[in-house]
Amino acid sequence: MDLKNLKINGARLKNTLEKMAAIGGTPGGGVHRLALSDEDRQARDLFIKWLREIDLEVTVDEMGNIFGRRSGENEKWPAVISGSHIDSQPKGGRFDGILGVMGALEVMRTIQENRIKTRRPLMIVNWTNEEGSRFSPAMVGSGVWTGKIDREWAYAREDIQGKKFGEELKRIGYKGQKKAEKWPVQAYFELHIEQGPILEKISHRIGVPKGIIGISWYDVWLEGKANQVGPTPMEGRNDALCAAAEMILKVEGLPGKMGGNMVATVGEIHNYPNSRNIIPGQVRFTIDMRSWNDELVTKGWENLRQDLTTLAARRGCQVRYEEVWKVKHAPFAESLVVRVKEIAEGLGYPSHGMISGAGHDATYMSQVAPTAMIFVPSIGGRSHVEVENTKWEDCEAGANVLLHCVLQSANE
Amino acid sequence: MDLKNLKINGARLKNTLEKMAAIGGTPGGGVHRLALSDEDRQARDLFIKWLREIDLEVTVDEMGNIFGRRSGENEKWPAVISGSHIDSQPKGGRFDGILGVMGALEVMRTIQENRIKTRRPLMIVNWTNEEGSRFSPAMVGSGVWTGKIDREWAYAREDIQGKKFGEELKRIGYKGQKKAEKWPVQAYFELHIEQGPILEKISHRIGVPKGIIGISWYDVWLEGKANQVGPTPMEGRNDALCAAAEMILKVEGLPGKMGGNMVATVGEIHNYPNSRNIIPGQVRFTIDMRSWNDELVTKGWENLRQDLTTLAARRGCQVRYEEVWKVKHAPFAESLVVRVKEIAEGLGYPSHGMISGAGHDATYMSQVAPTAMIFVPSIGGRSHVEVENTKWEDCEAGANVLLHCVLQSANE
Repeated sequence: MDLKNLKINGARLKNTLEKMAAIGGTPGGGVHRLALSDEDRQARDLFIKWLREIDLEVTVDEMGNIFGRRSGENEKWPAVISGSHIDSQPKGGRFDGILGVMGALEVMRTIQENRIKTRRPLMIVNWTNEEGSRFSPAMVGSGVWTGKIDREWAYAREDIQGKKFGEELKRIGYKGQKKAEKWPVQAYFELHIEQGPILEKISHRIGVPKGIIGISWYDVWLEGKANQVGPTPMEGRNDALCAAAEMILKVEGLPGKMGGNMVATVGEIHNYPNSRNIIPGQVRFTIDMRSWNDELVTKGWENLRQDLTTLAARRGCQVRYEEVWKVKHAPFAESLVVRVKEIAEGLGYPSHGMISGAGHDATYMSQVAPTAMIFVPSIGGRSHVEVENTKWEDCEAGANVLLHCVLQSANE
Repeated sequence: MDLKNLKINGARLKNTLEKMAAIGGTPGGGVHRLALSDEDRQARDLFIKWLREIDLEVTVDEMGNIFGRRSGENEKWPAVISGSHIDSQPKGGRFDGILGVMGALEVMRTIQENRIKTRRPLMIVNWTNEEGSRFSPAMVGSGVWTGKIDREWAYAREDIQGKKFGEELKRIGYKGQKKAEKWPVQAYFELHIEQGPILEKISHRIGVPKGIIGISWYDVWLEGKANQVGPTPMEGRNDALCAAAEMILKVEGLPGKMGGNMVATVGEIHNYPNSRNIIPGQVRFTIDMRSWNDELVTKGWENLRQDLTTLAARRGCQVRYEEVWKVKHAPFAESLVVRVKEIAEGLGYPSHGMISGAGHDATYMSQVAPTAMIFVPSIGGRSHVEVENTKWEDCEAGANVLLHCVLQSANE
């Protein structure tokens, strides 16, 4: 057959995604499928059943990463891998991560049913714990596999109830024997929803990221002085929450101050004792800073840290900072970025060059293998929420681009 | 004997307070004795044992309020009551509330051991759930007794685990038979720590409040738009936590704006989904406003509400307000306020006229009976925290003032 006209089966992809959305489905129309939960296990079991139905060779490594492999004409040549993650945010959406895994499955099904031979082996992957919302940090499965995160450290990570990553991995039956260690890869492709408003705004079906923004996470600990609210005059208070409020606005204002090419967010705050009639004595909050320009983040943090320190001193509060996580920006392989763009246009999908503002397993993969991503539009730009949505025809378009990227790379 | 020279036993008072501090004592030197907890029961049992040791007639009413009664020469004449509360804040201090109950006990012991006859009967009271931190609102035992709070509504109040006030009262064995209903009272005195910094600052031993400040509680609900932090540009965000941050600073600035005779505090905040990499979509926070001037609070709230509404609109957030609790300022009986002042000075203690910034059971009592309070200094002005502290000689001085106030009122 002429490979050029090959298309994936959009109806089958939709049906597959809907079956997955039922596992951990929420009344609000989203998905709650935290890493290493019973829902994660259920989705993994179904995924493996589907892999076996098309005769792929299934491997689970010691991090719970699942690989499905299809032979190539040259078995020793590095494989082409595509995939993403099955886990979700708490009350997250039905497309984040899972589209990349089910899209790769649909690509493999299409290749299999058309009995297409490829020069190189093909693989699908589901990376464990991409979200990092149950076990911090994010992208742990791909992090260990690429050698960027220590395996024992990962096993020891605890959720909010004190349960350990390693034990939960074992409990759901996905602590495999095979070492989680990188091997030579010809190309890694990850299909994903944009999680932002740009593609929808410009009515383009395919986003072609040139790489992933750098991400820095900080924790800020504030210590003021708790006291009864009534008899304590406004003057002389050391209200940790008021200090935090000023700081939150400083964080919000930072991108503008630094020239705009950055986002900065306080997503999480804990206030103590958090009682209506007690002046807050302690606050902890998080800062998430992202930019393509690593130096801008470094300079921005220096600038912000100075502002926050001054502010804390003025309010008589003690302040302490902790750097929780830092990944530099991850540029993708130029040749593969061009390939995504050309294939999209060849298929008649208007495409748009961009930068990924979210972290993905592709961040770590890009450090050990030629990597690219394919984005499809998020309705209303919403993600990590139950109303997260993407049109079925956009899912289909993204999977078609993935299909031809995989085939081209597999026949090099 | 000459009543004028009568003094309470400071060493015995200290010993009694120390025994009580052991019940629910925390490693940080404070007390965790929430209303209707096992610790509350244990402290009540000990209190009743002590009441019986000095032959007082003990009654427990249907709200769990405990009364200890000593006969007077004219049994039908209205009694003089003194007391406060045994319950504490979560990880609260060793003096708040309990000083007023143990002070009243020490006064009664002194009168009893000196075989002093009084024209009127004398009573001690422990009011149930003054703090309101386990079961909101505060001052519930005295509120029902004075007819200001409905009994069935109080029984139905739930703690954070869904346990009901009425059931917990029964569980600890303190749901009595006697109706919780006011009867004629000659005078009500409550000895309490100041919970503020004023007396310590001016080195005066006795505070003489002319009444209690009015208190208004509000809840503010904010609805923005949750989203992935990375791919969502700063422009166009509807970050509920940033909106809350601006609002918290507006609340802090309100007393200055209104002329200063007021305090306003945000003590509690809940942020959703409270995840490091999600733009906050919902926030709930509390506002506590207090002033002697009820109209200033009303005007202040109108002013603030307008500011918050404008602010929410500017940030594209929805906002909703709820009035949770409102008590007007409670002026004490002038004649009793003068009595406290004169007795303090007669005993050689420098005294200071003031206003109570904290709510007390005396708020409700002042609405049905002649009422006054006696304050003693709080070290560093700290209260509702484990380091809350008051010098033993100040506790003793306060109990001496209470003794003579009780005796004078009992012989009118």
